[in-house]
Formats: sequence, C-alpha cells, structure tokens
Amino acid sequence: MSNPTAAMLVIGDEILSGRTRDSNMHYLAGELTRIGIRLQEARMVADDHGDIVAAVNALRGRYDTVFTSGGIGPTHDDITADAIAAAFGVAIGHRADAMALLQAHYDRSGQPFNEARQRMARIPEGARLIDNPVSIAPGFSLDNVHVMAGVPGIFQAMVASVLPTLTGGAPLLSQSLRVNRGEGEIATPFAALAAEFPDLTMGSYPFNQNGAYGTNLVVRGTDPGRLDAAMVKLVALFG
Amino acid sequence: MSNPTAAMLVIGDEILSGRTRDSNMHYLAGELTRIGIRLQEARMVADDHGDIVAAVNALRGRYDTVFTSGGIGPTHDDITADAIAAAFGVAIGHRADAMALLQAHYDRSGQPFNEARQRMARIPEGARLIDNPVSIAPGFSLDNVHVMAGVPGIFQAMVASVLPTLTGGAPLLSQSLRVNRGEGEIATPFAALAAEFPDLTMGSYPFNQNGAYGTNLVVRGTDPGRLDAAMVKLVALFG
Repeated sequence: MSNPTAAMLVIGDEILSGRTRDSNMHYLAGELTRIGIRLQEARMVADDHGDIVAAVNALRGRYDTVFTSGGIGPTHDDITADAIAAAFGVAIGHRADAMALLQAHYDRSGQPFNEARQRMARIPEGARLIDNPVSIAPGFSLDNVHVMAGVPGIFQAMVASVLPTLTGGAPLLSQSLRVNRGEGEIATPFAALAAEFPDLTMGSYPFNQNGAYGTNLVVRGTDPGRLDAAMVKLVALFG
Repeated sequence: MSNPTAAMLVIGDEILSGRTRDSNMHYLAGELTRIGIRLQEARMVADDHGDIVAAVNALRGRYDTVFTSGGIGPTHDDITADAIAAAFGVAIGHRADAMALLQAHYDRSGQPFNEARQRMARIPEGARLIDNPVSIAPGFSLDNVHVMAGVPGIFQAMVASVLPTLTGGAPLLSQSLRVNRGEGEIATPFAALAAEFPDLTMGSYPFNQNGAYGTNLVVRGTDPGRLDAAMVKLVALFG
C-alpha cells in the first residue's frame, strides 16, 4: 500500500521521566489513519538540543511528513524552535507577524508582553505559522516538519489546522473480530488467511478481562471490498 | 548526572494505527526513574522486520540498556524474536528449556502444545530467558537488550524480573510546586533559579483545568539536599 508516510517526535523530559503520560501520539495516530497517512514511527526524546536535532533530521529525511509536540512555550526548558532551526541550518529570530499576534493577545488580556512571552515569537527563517486558537502562540511548519505545542488541547487544534494542508491517501480501514480463544489456538489458520490476502495486514491482540481471555483479530487495508471478503472468511473460521 | 541510561522500543502496528494506546512506556519510565536509570529515548515502530532491526541496533549501541515490548506471541505478526536475532547476527531456534516450560504449561491446562505455541520457544542463541509468571511464554535478554511481551500485565511482570539484575544509580527525585500563574509570568525568575542550580533540571508544565490555568514547576535531580534548597527558593519566589 503506497499511502503517504509520517513520523511523530514527542519532545519533553516529563514524558521520559514518567511524570506525564503522552496522549498526543495516540491522538495523531487516529487522525492520520482516518485520512490515509501511515504513521510509521514515533520517537520520544528529552529537552536536549542534540537529541532533538538528530531525531528531526533522521525522521524528516525518511518520511513524507514529521509532526513534533512540545517545547515551544516561554520558559527556559522550551528549546524546540532553536533545535528545529539548527536541524535545518537556518537562522531564528523574533518574527514580526508572530510578535503582532501575541502583542494584540496580551494587550486584550491586560498582561505584559514581556521578554519570556516574546520568546514564543521566535520562529525559524522560512517557516509558515500554524494557528493556535487556544492560546495564540503559534506553531510553525518548515518544509515537511510541523512543530506543535505539547498541551493536548493546543496540539489537537494545531493538528486540525495542518491536516487539511496535507495530501492523504485512501483511508486506512480496519475491521475486527473478537474471539473467545487464545492466540495459540487460532494462529495457524489465521496465518494462512493472512497469506491469502497479501494486500491486507492482519494482527492478533490477546486480552484477559475479568478472568475471560481471548483474542481480537484485526484486519487492515484500504480496499473496503477486500476487507469485507477477508472478514467473511474470518467469521467462517472463528465466528 | 551520570546515571545509567536506557531506551525503550515499543513494537506493534496497533500502536501506530491508533487502535491501542501504549501504556508500557509510561510504566517503565516510572520504574526506571525510581531506581535511578535515566530513560533517554523511546521509539515506536510497526511489525516490520527491517524497522525493528534498525531501531534495536541504533539503541543498543547508544544506551546502557534497551527494553522492547510486543511481538513475541504465537501468531504470524509476532516477528520480534527473529528481528532481534537478525540485529545481533545470531541464530534462532526452538530452545529446549523454553519448550519444556511451555509443554508443562499446556499439559497442565489440557491444551495442545501445537506448532503456533511452539513458536514462543524460539529464542536467539546466547539469550537468557525472562520469567513470565502470567502466561509462561518467556521473554529473553541478549546482551543489553531485554525483550518482553506487549500485554501490559505480562510486560510489568517481566520488568519486575529484569530490574533487579540491572545496576541502577541514585534515584531520580523530583519535587513540584503548583502556581496559579501562567508560564510567561514566571519564566524569567524561573530560568534564573535554574541557572543557579546547574546540577538540577527544572521544567514548567502549563495546565488549564475547569477554566483555571496555571503552571506546575518541577525540579529534578539526585541530591535530596539540593532539591530541598531549590524548593525553598522556588516557594519564596512563587509560593
């Protein structure tokens, strides 16, 4: 299947220390699947300049689109914008349109537009701003890399701005069947069925809920007719 | 801070498609922090042989310890053990002690120890088995790579077996202060405080709950006395 590909880079000490459980990657995964972009890899790195630069450069060369979350706020530990500029080898500075957006926002709210808040207008040269309807401070896109906030509500709003600008593929569909048997019992016929449908991917996911165990069998692909055909056979085998 | 380092590799199509939200990385992050091992990177890749091999080799060379989750069950989409063997350039086959463990388990439960179930005894040459008290099929460790199940209950049991075999460091401690001010208001004095304590890391995490917004300020390090000293100053500034 030749859907466009994507990767996500989650940036932040708080994720790797276990303080915060990331939710942005799971959210993005669902959104991309819906529009037919295949999320092929995700990475999580700390607020470390060298680690961010290395990860961005590895991912942007390999996948059609890269999304980052985290590290674009006003505090000293927010170093993502500088790292992205370094990864692309471009300059970074306070940009007039971002300054104007933020100035108007803080004027309206009667808060000082101080030096820390002005940091959020530092944008790498050549980037396009990503709208932030929640707290105004913009994200930005540079080439195929989309740099977004880590706060889930803002991240989601930024994803909503970016996705319509991307070329998707045929939606990545899935259907599943829950069976009350262990994986070891169904594995051989399930593998044979998967071999009959090389254009689909089939996965099995064991569960154990309230003492009942079983397996969720999931079929994925882009052709609804093929999915239906596979599900008919799956139900005949295990339904 | 010179704590031992670690990385985690989460393996599975179901994570990247958005079907399942990974919980193992967050669990492991908390456990490692407690024993003073610094989780520096996490990656998530699909059930793809080449992607798994490349990620394992990148991570095992760079970090003291690597943990993987997922892909060691009996079905055709479980390809992790073969990929690990390929990454290390070693052979893989059904191992006698793993076969004996599983044979006894299926004999007890009156289920056939069929070919699919026997796949779970395929272990790369030179590996040590990781005990699975939940469903018997073992994980394994090869050099500094620990290969574990994706089902959270089994993953956690395997982590409990592996951690006592590792050399930890001073526990990575953290203290936090919740302030009812935005990040932009506290950023400058907070950065100055962080500069006074170069042996600690300080991060700020904005929140917006039920219309109340504010910031959680988090101080991390290994020396409890230094953390206390920083917190006294933090409270004096913002408390």
